[in-house]
Amino acid sequence: MTFEEWSASSRKSVDARLQTRFDDAWPPKFREATLYPLQTGGKRIRPLFSLAAMDTLGCPQSADCVSVAASVELIHTYSLVHDDMPCMDDDDERRGKPSVHKRFDEPAALLVGDALLTEAFRILTTTGLSPTTQVRLVTELANGAGHVGMIGGQAADIGMGGPVTEIDALMRLHNGKTGALIRTSVRMGAITAGATDEELSRLTAYGDAIGLAFQMADDILDKDEDAGDDGPPSYVKLIGEEETRRRARQLLDEALSICDTFSGSQHLISLARFTVDRDY
Amino acid sequence: MTFEEWSASSRKSVDARLQTRFDDAWPPKFREATLYPLQTGGKRIRPLFSLAAMDTLGCPQSADCVSVAASVELIHTYSLVHDDMPCMDDDDERRGKPSVHKRFDEPAALLVGDALLTEAFRILTTTGLSPTTQVRLVTELANGAGHVGMIGGQAADIGMGGPVTEIDALMRLHNGKTGALIRTSVRMGAITAGATDEELSRLTAYGDAIGLAFQMADDILDKDEDAGDDGPPSYVKLIGEEETRRRARQLLDEALSICDTFSGSQHLISLARFTVDRDY
Repeated sequence: MTFEEWSASSRKSVDARLQTRFDDAWPPKFREATLYPLQTGGKRIRPLFSLAAMDTLGCPQSADCVSVAASVELIHTYSLVHDDMPCMDDDDERRGKPSVHKRFDEPAALLVGDALLTEAFRILTTTGLSPTTQVRLVTELANGAGHVGMIGGQAADIGMGGPVTEIDALMRLHNGKTGALIRTSVRMGAITAGATDEELSRLTAYGDAIGLAFQMADDILDKDEDAGDDGPPSYVKLIGEEETRRRARQLLDEALSICDTFSGSQHLISLARFTVDRDY
Repeated sequence: MTFEEWSASSRKSVDARLQTRFDDAWPPKFREATLYPLQTGGKRIRPLFSLAAMDTLGCPQSADCVSVAASVELIHTYSLVHDDMPCMDDDDERRGKPSVHKRFDEPAALLVGDALLTEAFRILTTTGLSPTTQVRLVTELANGAGHVGMIGGQAADIGMGGPVTEIDALMRLHNGKTGALIRTSVRMGAITAGATDEELSRLTAYGDAIGLAFQMADDILDKDEDAGDDGPPSYVKLIGEEETRRRARQLLDEALSICDTFSGSQHLISLARFTVDRDY
Protein backbone atom coordinates (compact mmCIF):
# COMPACT_ATOMS: atom_id res chain seq x y z
CA MET A 1 0.00 0.00 0.00
CA THR A 2 1.39 3.44 -0.88
CA PHE A 3 1.67 6.11 1.82
CA GLU A 4 -1.13 8.05 0.14
CA GLU A 5 -3.46 5.06 0.22
CA TRP A 6 -2.50 4.13 3.76
CA SER A 7 -2.88 7.65 5.12
CA ALA A 8 -6.22 8.22 3.35
CA SER A 9 -7.62 4.96 4.68
CA SER A 10 -6.23 5.59 8.19
CA ARG A 11 -7.65 9.11 8.23
CA LYS A 12 -11.05 7.69 7.29
CA SER A 13 -10.92 5.15 10.13
CA VAL A 14 -9.97 7.84 12.67
CA ASP A 15 -12.77 10.11 11.47
CA ALA A 16 -15.30 7.30 11.68
CA ARG A 17 -14.15 6.47 15.20
CA LEU A 18 -14.41 10.10 16.29
CA GLN A 19 -17.90 10.30 14.83
CA THR A 20 -19.18 7.32 16.83
CA ARG A 21 -18.28 9.06 20.11
CA PHE A 22 -21.05 11.58 19.53
CA ASP A 23 -24.17 9.69 20.51
CA ASP A 24 -27.49 10.86 21.91
CA ALA A 25 -26.05 11.35 25.38
CA TRP A 26 -24.78 14.77 24.20
CA PRO A 27 -27.10 17.76 24.57
CA PRO A 28 -28.10 18.23 20.87
CA LYS A 29 -26.66 21.64 20.16
CA PHE A 30 -23.54 20.88 22.20
CA ARG A 31 -23.04 17.70 20.19
CA GLU A 32 -23.12 19.76 17.01
CA ALA A 33 -20.67 22.34 18.39
CA THR A 34 -18.22 19.71 19.65
CA LEU A 35 -18.29 17.72 16.41
CA TYR A 36 -17.84 20.86 14.32
CA PRO A 37 -14.08 21.43 14.84
CA LEU A 38 -13.49 17.71 14.17
CA GLN A 39 -15.18 18.04 10.79
CA THR A 40 -13.35 20.99 9.31
CA GLY A 41 -10.75 18.98 7.47
CA GLY A 42 -7.69 18.41 9.65
CA LYS A 43 -4.88 16.32 8.23
CA ARG A 44 -4.91 13.98 11.26
CA ILE A 45 -1.11 14.12 11.39
CA ARG A 46 -0.90 13.05 15.03
CA PRO A 47 -3.11 9.97 14.69
CA LEU A 48 -1.06 9.04 11.62
CA PHE A 49 2.10 9.15 13.75
CA SER A 50 0.48 6.76 16.23
CA LEU A 51 -0.71 4.41 13.52
CA ALA A 52 2.60 4.52 11.64
CA ALA A 53 4.47 3.60 14.83
CA MET A 54 2.11 0.64 15.32
CA ASP A 55 2.59 -0.36 11.70
CA THR A 56 6.37 -0.17 12.06
CA LEU A 57 6.18 -2.64 14.94
CA GLY A 58 4.01 -5.01 12.89
CA CYS A 59 0.81 -4.35 14.81
CA PRO A 60 -2.29 -4.72 12.59
CA GLN A 61 -4.61 -1.68 12.57
CA SER A 62 -7.41 -2.82 14.92
CA ALA A 63 -10.33 -0.76 16.21
CA ASP A 64 -8.40 -0.31 19.47
CA CYS A 65 -5.43 1.11 17.57
CA VAL A 66 -7.72 3.63 15.91
CA SER A 67 -9.21 4.66 19.26
CA VAL A 68 -5.75 5.35 20.64
CA ALA A 69 -4.90 7.40 17.55
CA ALA A 70 -8.19 9.30 17.84
CA SER A 71 -7.41 10.30 21.43
CA VAL A 72 -4.44 12.45 20.36
CA GLU A 73 -6.56 14.14 17.70
CA LEU A 74 -9.11 15.03 20.40
CA ILE A 75 -6.32 16.72 22.40
CA HIS A 76 -4.99 18.53 19.34
CA THR A 77 -8.47 19.74 18.38
CA TYR A 78 -9.30 21.01 21.86
CA SER A 79 -6.05 23.00 21.86
CA LEU A 80 -6.96 24.64 18.53
CA VAL A 81 -10.46 25.55 19.75
CA HIS A 82 -9.11 27.21 22.90
CA ASP A 83 -6.20 28.83 21.00
CA ASP A 84 -8.55 30.49 18.54
CA MET A 85 -10.59 32.15 21.30
CA PRO A 86 -10.54 35.96 21.50
CA CYS A 87 -8.48 35.99 24.72
CA MET A 88 -5.77 33.88 23.01
CA ASP A 89 -5.00 34.25 19.28
CA ASP A 90 -8.40 35.72 18.41
CA ASP A 91 -8.64 33.85 15.12
CA ASP A 92 -11.99 34.10 13.38
CA GLU A 93 -11.14 31.33 10.95
CA ARG A 94 -9.58 27.91 11.10
CA ARG A 95 -8.93 25.93 7.94
CA GLY A 96 -10.96 28.46 5.96
CA LYS A 97 -14.07 28.07 8.11
CA PRO A 98 -15.37 30.10 11.05
CA SER A 99 -13.68 29.04 14.29
CA VAL A 100 -15.90 27.55 17.00
CA HIS A 101 -16.45 30.81 18.91
CA LYS A 102 -17.49 32.54 15.65
CA ARG A 103 -19.72 29.70 14.40
CA PHE A 104 -21.27 29.27 17.87
CA ASP A 105 -20.13 31.60 20.66
CA GLU A 106 -17.36 32.00 23.22
CA PRO A 107 -18.95 30.04 26.06
CA ALA A 108 -19.61 27.21 23.60
CA ALA A 109 -15.97 27.25 22.44
CA LEU A 110 -14.72 27.11 26.03
CA LEU A 111 -16.94 24.12 26.88
CA VAL A 112 -16.29 22.39 23.54
CA GLY A 113 -12.55 22.47 24.28
CA ASP A 114 -13.12 21.15 27.80
CA ALA A 115 -15.35 18.38 26.46
CA LEU A 116 -12.85 17.32 23.78
CA LEU A 117 -10.06 17.22 26.37
CA THR A 118 -12.15 15.07 28.69
CA GLU A 119 -13.26 12.80 25.85
CA ALA A 120 -9.62 12.16 24.89
CA PHE A 121 -9.13 10.35 28.19
CA ARG A 122 -12.52 8.70 28.06
CA ILE A 123 -11.92 7.11 24.66
CA LEU A 124 -8.69 5.52 25.93
CA THR A 125 -10.62 3.49 28.47
CA THR A 126 -13.07 2.13 25.89
CA THR A 127 -10.50 -0.16 24.27
CA GLY A 128 -10.01 -3.85 24.86
CA LEU A 129 -6.30 -3.28 25.56
CA SER A 130 -4.96 -4.66 28.83
CA PRO A 131 -5.57 -2.45 31.89
CA THR A 132 -1.79 -2.05 32.26
CA THR A 133 -1.53 -0.73 28.69
CA GLN A 134 -4.54 1.54 29.18
CA VAL A 135 -2.98 3.07 32.29
CA ARG A 136 0.30 3.63 30.45
CA LEU A 137 -1.60 5.34 27.63
CA VAL A 138 -3.48 7.63 30.01
CA THR A 139 -0.20 8.58 31.70
CA GLU A 140 1.43 9.18 28.34
CA LEU A 141 -1.42 11.36 27.08
CA ALA A 142 -1.61 13.36 30.31
CA ASN A 143 2.14 13.97 30.16
CA GLY A 144 2.06 14.99 26.50
CA ALA A 145 -0.94 17.27 26.93
CA GLY A 146 -0.10 18.61 30.39
CA HIS A 147 2.32 21.02 32.01
CA VAL A 148 5.39 18.97 31.09
CA GLY A 149 4.16 18.95 27.49
CA MET A 150 1.72 20.95 25.41
CA ILE A 151 0.18 23.22 28.05
CA GLY A 152 3.59 23.92 29.55
CA GLY A 153 4.71 25.07 26.09
CA GLN A 154 1.58 27.16 25.63
CA ALA A 155 2.13 28.78 29.01
CA ALA A 156 5.72 29.60 27.98
CA ASP A 157 4.30 30.96 24.73
CA ILE A 158 2.18 33.52 26.60
CA GLY A 159 5.17 34.54 28.70
CA MET A 160 4.66 32.43 31.83
CA GLY A 161 7.94 30.54 31.50
CA GLY A 162 10.42 33.40 31.48
CA PRO A 163 11.98 35.32 28.58
CA VAL A 164 12.47 33.61 25.20
CA THR A 165 15.37 35.44 23.65
CA GLU A 166 17.72 32.61 22.80
CA ILE A 167 17.49 29.44 20.79
CA ASP A 168 17.56 27.03 23.74
CA ALA A 169 14.54 28.67 25.35
CA LEU A 170 12.69 28.71 22.02
CA MET A 171 13.42 25.03 21.47
CA ARG A 172 12.23 24.22 24.99
CA LEU A 173 9.03 26.15 24.31
CA HIS A 174 8.29 24.33 21.04
CA ASN A 175 9.42 21.03 22.44
CA GLY A 176 6.40 21.45 24.71
CA LYS A 177 3.94 23.37 22.58
CA THR A 178 4.18 21.33 19.35
CA GLY A 179 6.76 18.63 19.95
CA ALA A 180 5.29 16.95 23.01
CA LEU A 181 2.06 15.83 21.37
CA ILE A 182 3.90 14.45 18.33
CA ARG A 183 6.33 12.60 20.56
CA THR A 184 3.35 11.35 22.60
CA SER A 185 1.52 10.21 19.45
CA VAL A 186 4.50 8.11 18.40
CA ARG A 187 5.00 6.73 21.92
CA MET A 188 1.32 5.85 22.33
CA GLY A 189 1.48 3.96 19.05
CA ALA A 190 4.56 2.10 20.25
CA ILE A 191 3.02 1.27 23.63
CA THR A 192 -0.19 0.02 21.99
CA ALA A 193 1.89 -2.21 19.71
CA GLY A 194 3.69 -3.69 22.72
CA ALA A 195 7.09 -2.14 22.00
CA THR A 196 10.08 -3.28 24.03
CA ASP A 197 11.76 -0.59 26.13
CA GLU A 198 14.50 -0.40 23.58
CA GLU A 199 12.10 0.02 20.64
CA LEU A 200 10.15 2.62 22.62
CA SER A 201 13.31 4.57 23.28
CA ARG A 202 14.30 4.59 19.59
CA LEU A 203 10.81 5.68 18.55
CA THR A 204 10.82 8.38 21.24
CA ALA A 205 14.00 9.81 19.72
CA TYR A 206 12.23 9.80 16.33
CA GLY A 207 9.26 11.65 17.86
CA ASP A 208 11.51 14.18 19.58
CA ALA A 209 13.37 14.97 16.37
CA ILE A 210 10.26 15.25 14.18
CA GLY A 211 8.38 17.16 16.88
CA LEU A 212 11.03 19.87 16.90
CA ALA A 213 11.59 19.87 13.13
CA PHE A 214 7.84 20.20 12.54
CA GLN A 215 7.74 23.69 14.09
CA MET A 216 10.86 24.76 12.22
CA ALA A 217 9.24 23.73 8.94
CA ASP A 218 6.13 25.66 9.96
CA ASP A 219 8.16 28.77 10.70
CA ILE A 220 9.89 28.54 7.31
CA LEU A 221 6.53 28.26 5.56
CA ASP A 222 5.11 31.18 7.54
CA LYS A 223 8.23 33.33 7.38
CA ASP A 224 6.47 36.19 5.63
CA GLU A 225 3.72 36.35 8.26
CA ASP A 226 6.21 36.72 11.06
CA ALA A 227 5.79 40.30 12.16
CA GLY A 228 5.15 42.48 15.11
CA ASP A 229 3.19 40.44 17.63
CA ASP A 230 4.04 40.22 21.31
CA GLY A 231 4.87 36.54 21.51
CA PRO A 232 8.23 34.81 21.27
CA PRO A 233 10.16 35.08 17.96
CA SER A 234 9.93 32.45 15.24
CA TYR A 235 12.96 30.27 14.50
CA VAL A 236 13.48 32.21 11.28
CA LYS A 237 13.48 35.50 13.14
CA LEU A 238 15.81 34.27 15.87
CA ILE A 239 18.42 32.28 13.92
CA GLY A 240 17.65 33.09 10.28
CA GLU A 241 16.09 31.03 7.52
CA GLU A 242 19.23 29.24 6.47
CA GLU A 243 20.12 28.06 9.95
CA THR A 244 16.49 27.01 10.58
CA ARG A 245 16.57 24.95 7.38
CA ARG A 246 19.89 23.41 8.39
CA ARG A 247 18.58 22.39 11.80
CA ALA A 248 15.30 21.03 10.41
CA ARG A 249 17.23 18.99 7.85
CA GLN A 250 19.54 17.64 10.54
CA LEU A 251 16.61 16.61 12.73
CA LEU A 252 14.91 14.98 9.74
CA ASP A 253 18.10 13.04 8.97
CA GLU A 254 18.28 11.89 12.58
CA ALA A 255 14.68 10.69 12.42
CA LEU A 256 15.25 8.92 9.11
CA SER A 257 18.33 7.16 10.40
CA ILE A 258 16.25 5.86 13.32
CA CYS A 259 13.67 4.61 10.82
CA ASP A 260 16.46 2.64 9.11
CA THR A 261 16.93 0.59 12.27
CA PHE A 262 13.41 -0.84 11.77
CA SER A 263 12.32 -2.99 8.86
CA GLY A 264 8.85 -1.94 7.71
CA SER A 265 9.05 1.68 8.80
CA GLN A 266 8.04 3.06 5.39
CA HIS A 267 5.01 4.99 6.71
CA LEU A 268 7.07 6.58 9.49
CA ILE A 269 9.60 7.62 6.85
CA SER A 270 6.95 9.10 4.56
CA LEU A 271 5.33 10.87 7.47
CA ALA A 272 8.62 12.41 8.53
CA ARG A 273 9.19 13.69 5.00
CA PHE A 274 5.57 14.83 4.67
CA THR A 275 5.63 16.88 7.86
CA VAL A 276 9.16 18.34 7.72
CA ASP A 277 10.23 18.32 4.10
CA ARG A 278 7.26 20.38 3.03
CA ASP A 279 8.82 23.05 0.90
CA TYR A 280 12.47 22.26 0.45
CA MET B 1 -12.99 10.89 65.62
CA THR B 2 -15.67 13.56 65.26
CA PHE B 3 -16.75 14.66 61.78
CA GLU B 4 -15.07 18.02 62.35
CA GLU B 5 -11.76 16.39 63.26
CA TRP B 6 -11.99 13.89 60.42
CA SER B 7 -12.88 16.46 57.77
CA ALA B 8 -10.19 18.91 58.92
CA SER B 9 -7.53 16.23 58.83
CA SER B 10 -8.75 14.86 55.48
CA ARG B 11 -8.80 18.35 53.97
CA LYS B 12 -5.23 18.85 55.12
CA SER B 13 -4.12 15.60 53.48
CA VAL B 14 -5.82 16.50 50.19
CA ASP B 15 -4.25 19.96 50.21
CA ALA B 16 -0.81 18.50 50.89
CA ARG B 17 -1.26 16.02 48.06
CA LEU B 18 -2.33 18.75 45.64
CA GLN B 19 0.68 20.84 46.61
CA THR B 20 3.16 18.06 45.83
CA ARG B 21 1.93 17.91 42.22
CA PHE B 22 3.44 21.32 41.55
CA ASP B 23 7.11 20.60 41.14
CA ASP B 24 9.83 22.34 39.14
CA ALA B 25 8.60 20.85 35.87
CA TRP B 26 6.02 23.67 35.74
CA PRO B 27 7.00 26.94 34.07
CA PRO B 28 7.43 29.12 37.20
CA LYS B 29 4.71 31.71 36.67
CA PHE B 30 2.31 29.07 35.34
CA ARG B 31 2.93 26.98 38.44
CA GLU B 32 1.96 29.96 40.58
CA ALA B 33 -1.18 30.63 38.52
CA THR B 34 -2.31 27.00 38.56
CA LEU B 35 -1.73 26.59 42.30
CA TYR B 36 -3.53 29.85 43.06
CA PRO B 37 -7.16 28.67 42.66
CA LEU B 38 -6.32 25.59 44.74
CA GLN B 39 -5.17 27.79 47.60
CA THR B 40 -8.12 30.13 47.98
CA GLY B 41 -9.87 28.13 50.67
CA GLY B 42 -12.28 25.65 49.09
CA LYS B 43 -14.18 23.33 51.43
CA ARG B 44 -12.98 20.22 49.52
CA ILE B 45 -16.51 18.80 49.67
CA ARG B 46 -15.98 16.43 46.74
CA PRO B 47 -12.79 14.85 48.06
CA LEU B 48 -14.56 14.45 51.41
CA PHE B 49 -17.33 12.51 49.65
CA SER B 50 -14.72 10.17 48.15
CA LEU B 51 -12.92 9.70 51.45
CA ALA B 52 -16.17 9.22 53.41
CA ALA B 53 -17.27 6.51 50.96
CA MET B 54 -13.92 4.76 51.45
CA ASP B 55 -14.26 5.11 55.22
CA THR B 56 -17.77 3.67 55.10
CA LEU B 57 -16.41 0.56 53.39
CA GLY B 58 -13.66 0.19 55.99
CA CYS B 59 -10.81 1.28 53.71
CA PRO B 60 -8.01 3.02 55.66
CA GLN B 61 -7.05 6.47 54.35
CA SER B 62 -3.85 5.72 52.40
CA ALA B 63 -1.86 8.09 50.19
CA ASP B 64 -3.55 6.46 47.15
CA CYS B 65 -6.99 7.23 48.60
CA VAL B 66 -5.99 10.85 49.01
CA SER B 67 -4.75 11.03 45.39
CA VAL B 68 -8.09 9.74 44.13
CA ALA B 69 -9.91 12.29 46.27
CA ALA B 70 -7.61 15.06 45.02
CA SER B 71 -8.43 14.24 41.39
CA VAL B 72 -12.08 15.28 41.79
CA GLU B 73 -11.00 18.54 43.41
CA LEU B 74 -8.79 19.27 40.38
CA ILE B 75 -11.84 18.83 38.12
CA HIS B 76 -14.02 20.99 40.36
CA THR B 77 -11.37 23.72 40.50
CA TYR B 78 -10.83 23.79 36.75
CA SER B 79 -14.57 24.18 36.25
CA LEU B 80 -14.64 27.18 38.61
CA VAL B 81 -11.68 28.84 36.87
CA HIS B 82 -13.32 28.51 33.45
CA ASP B 83 -16.78 29.45 34.80
CA ASP B 84 -15.46 32.70 36.24
CA MET B 85 -14.03 33.85 32.90
CA PRO B 86 -15.53 36.94 31.26
CA CYS B 87 -17.19 34.93 28.47
CA MET B 88 -18.98 32.75 31.05
CA ASP B 89 -20.12 34.19 34.40
CA ASP B 90 -17.65 37.08 34.37
CA ASP B 91 -16.97 36.85 38.10
CA ASP B 92 -14.14 39.04 39.33
CA GLU B 93 -14.03 37.31 42.69
CA ARG B 94 -14.14 33.78 43.99
CA ARG B 95 -14.20 33.07 47.72
CA GLY B 96 -13.49 36.73 48.41
CA LYS B 97 -10.31 36.80 46.33
CA PRO B 98 -9.65 37.89 42.73
CA SER B 99 -10.54 35.11 40.30
CA VAL B 100 -7.70 33.68 38.19
CA HIS B 101 -8.31 35.90 35.15
CA LYS B 102 -8.29 39.00 37.40
CA ARG B 103 -5.26 37.99 39.46
CA PHE B 104 -3.37 36.88 36.31
CA ASP B 105 -5.11 37.33 32.94
CA GLU B 106 -7.59 35.61 30.64
CA PRO B 107 -5.12 33.50 28.64
CA ALA B 108 -3.63 32.31 31.94
CA ALA B 109 -7.08 31.39 33.28
CA LEU B 110 -7.88 29.40 30.15
CA LEU B 111 -4.61 27.44 30.32
CA VAL B 112 -4.81 27.01 34.10
CA GLY B 113 -8.22 25.35 33.69
CA ASP B 114 -6.90 23.11 30.92
CA ALA B 115 -3.87 22.17 33.02
CA LEU B 116 -5.97 21.34 36.10
CA LEU B 117 -8.29 19.17 33.99
CA THR B 118 -5.33 17.30 32.50
CA GLU B 119 -3.67 16.92 35.89
CA ALA B 120 -6.83 15.33 37.30
CA PHE B 121 -6.32 12.35 35.00
CA ARG B 122 -2.58 12.35 35.48
CA ILE B 123 -2.78 12.08 39.26
CA LEU B 124 -5.03 9.00 38.96
CA THR B 125 -2.27 7.08 37.23
CA THR B 126 0.30 7.88 39.94
CA THR B 127 -1.29 5.58 42.52
CA GLY B 128 -0.26 2.06 43.42
CA LEU B 129 -3.82 0.83 42.87
CA SER B 130 -4.25 -2.09 40.48
CA PRO B 131 -4.31 -1.18 36.78
CA THR B 132 -7.90 -2.44 36.60
CA THR B 133 -8.93 -0.08 39.39
CA GLN B 134 -7.02 2.81 37.83
CA VAL B 135 -8.80 2.31 34.51
CA ARG B 136 -12.16 2.20 36.26
CA LEU B 137 -11.33 5.45 38.04
CA VAL B 138 -10.29 7.19 34.82
CA THR B 139 -13.54 6.06 33.17
CA GLU B 140 -15.53 7.23 36.16
CA LEU B 141 -13.86 10.64 36.27
CA ALA B 142 -14.21 11.15 32.51
CA ASN B 143 -17.90 10.27 32.71
CA GLY B 144 -18.54 12.54 35.68
CA ALA B 145 -16.62 15.45 34.18
CA GLY B 146 -17.64 14.93 30.55
CA HIS B 147 -20.66 15.38 28.32
CA VAL B 148 -22.76 12.82 30.21
CA GLY B 149 -21.91 14.67 33.43
CA MET B 150 -20.63 18.09 34.39
CA ILE B 151 -19.88 19.59 30.96
CA GLY B 152 -23.17 18.28 29.59
CA GLY B 153 -24.93 20.12 32.43
CA GLN B 154 -22.91 23.27 31.82
CA ALA B 155 -23.76 23.12 28.12
CA ALA B 156 -27.45 22.81 29.05
CA ASP B 157 -26.94 25.74 31.41
CA ILE B 158 -25.84 27.99 28.53
CA GLY B 159 -28.82 26.89 26.45
CA MET B 160 -27.28 24.13 24.34
CA GLY B 161 -29.57 21.40 25.63
CA GLY B 162 -32.97 22.83 24.77
CA PRO B 163 -35.38 24.94 26.84
CA VAL B 164 -35.42 24.60 30.63
CA THR B 165 -38.93 25.61 31.59
CA GLU B 166 -40.06 22.66 33.64
CA ILE B 167 -38.79 20.85 36.69
CA ASP B 168 -37.67 17.67 34.88
CA ALA B 169 -35.41 19.61 32.52
CA LEU B 170 -34.01 21.63 35.43
CA MET B 171 -33.28 18.47 37.41
CA ARG B 172 -31.58 16.91 34.38
CA LEU B 173 -29.45 20.02 34.00
CA HIS B 174 -28.34 20.05 37.64
CA ASN B 175 -27.98 16.30 37.70
CA GLY B 176 -25.18 16.96 35.21
CA LYS B 177 -23.85 20.34 36.24
CA THR B 178 -23.53 19.78 40.00
CA GLY B 179 -24.80 16.28 40.69
CA ALA B 180 -22.54 14.27 38.40
CA LEU B 181 -19.28 15.20 40.08
CA ILE B 182 -20.67 14.50 43.55
CA ARG B 183 -22.00 11.15 42.40
CA THR B 184 -18.61 10.48 40.77
CA SER B 185 -16.74 11.44 43.95
CA VAL B 186 -18.75 8.93 45.96
CA ARG B 187 -18.40 6.23 43.30
CA MET B 188 -14.64 6.76 42.96
CA GLY B 189 -14.33 6.37 46.71
CA ALA B 190 -16.33 3.16 46.56
CA ILE B 191 -14.31 1.77 43.64
CA THR B 192 -11.02 2.60 45.37
CA ALA B 193 -12.24 0.78 48.48
CA GLY B 194 -13.07 -2.31 46.42
CA ALA B 195 -16.86 -2.04 46.77
CA THR B 196 -18.99 -4.94 45.59
CA ASP B 197 -21.41 -4.14 42.75
CA GLU B 198 -24.21 -4.07 45.25
CA GLU B 199 -22.40 -1.67 47.59
CA LEU B 200 -21.46 0.53 44.63
CA SER B 201 -25.05 0.67 43.53
CA ARG B 202 -26.28 1.72 46.99
CA LEU B 203 -23.58 4.39 47.26
CA THR B 204 -24.41 5.62 43.76
CA ALA B 205 -28.00 6.16 44.86
CA TYR B 206 -26.68 8.13 47.84
CA GLY B 207 -24.54 10.24 45.50
CA ASP B 208 -27.44 10.84 43.12
CA ALA B 209 -29.72 12.01 45.93
CA ILE B 210 -27.15 14.29 47.58
CA GLY B 211 -25.95 15.59 44.20
CA LEU B 212 -29.43 16.84 43.37
CA ALA B 213 -30.24 18.06 46.87
CA PHE B 214 -26.98 20.02 46.99
CA GLN B 215 -28.11 22.39 44.23
CA MET B 216 -31.55 22.80 45.79
CA ALA B 217 -29.91 23.80 49.08
CA ASP B 218 -27.74 26.25 47.14
CA ASP B 219 -30.75 27.77 45.44
CA ILE B 220 -32.51 28.21 48.78
CA LEU B 221 -29.45 29.95 50.26
CA ASP B 222 -29.14 32.20 47.19
CA LYS B 223 -32.85 32.85 46.77
CA ASP B 224 -32.49 36.60 47.17
CA GLU B 225 -29.84 36.81 44.48
CA ASP B 226 -32.07 35.08 41.98
CA ALA B 227 -32.97 37.82 39.55
CA GLY B 228 -32.99 38.75 35.93
CA ASP B 229 -30.19 36.85 34.25
CA ASP B 230 -30.57 34.94 31.02
CA GLY B 231 -29.86 31.45 32.30
CA PRO B 232 -32.31 28.79 33.43
CA PRO B 233 -34.45 29.51 36.50
CA SER B 234 -33.45 28.43 40.00
CA TYR B 235 -35.43 25.71 41.75
CA VAL B 236 -36.92 28.37 44.03
CA LYS B 237 -38.06 30.43 41.06
CA LEU B 238 -39.49 27.44 39.20
CA ILE B 239 -41.27 25.51 41.96
CA GLY B 240 -41.17 27.88 44.95
CA GLU B 241 -39.15 27.80 48.14
CA GLU B 242 -41.45 25.50 50.06
CA GLU B 243 -41.52 22.84 47.35
CA THR B 244 -37.73 23.12 46.89
CA ARG B 245 -37.27 22.57 50.64
CA ARG B 246 -39.65 19.62 50.56
CA ARG B 247 -37.77 17.96 47.71
CA ALA B 248 -34.33 18.61 49.23
CA ARG B 249 -35.54 17.15 52.53
CA GLN B 250 -36.92 14.09 50.77
CA LEU B 251 -33.62 13.52 48.90
CA LEU B 252 -31.68 13.95 52.14
CA ASP B 253 -33.92 11.38 53.85
CA GLU B 254 -33.35 8.97 50.98
CA ALA B 255 -29.59 9.42 51.29
CA LEU B 256 -29.69 8.98 55.06
CA SER B 257 -31.75 5.82 54.79
CA ILE B 258 -29.08 4.41 52.43
CA CYS B 259 -26.43 5.31 55.01
CA ASP B 260 -28.38 3.24 57.56
CA THR B 261 -27.74 0.13 55.45
CA PHE B 262 -24.00 0.48 56.19
CA SER B 263 -22.40 0.21 59.60
CA GLY B 264 -19.73 2.86 59.99
CA SER B 265 -21.23 5.43 57.61
CA GLN B 266 -21.09 8.26 60.15
CA HIS B 267 -18.97 10.56 57.97
CA LEU B 268 -21.24 10.06 54.95
CA ILE B 269 -24.19 10.93 57.19
CA SER B 270 -22.51 14.07 58.53
CA LEU B 271 -21.46 15.09 55.04
CA ALA B 272 -25.01 14.71 53.73
CA ARG B 273 -26.31 16.90 56.54
CA PHE B 274 -23.45 19.38 56.12
CA THR B 275 -24.05 19.86 52.40
CA VAL B 276 -27.83 19.77 52.25
CA ASP B 277 -29.12 20.72 55.66
CA ARG B 278 -27.24 23.99 55.62
CA ASP B 279 -29.88 26.45 56.72
CA TYR B 280 -32.94 24.57 57.83
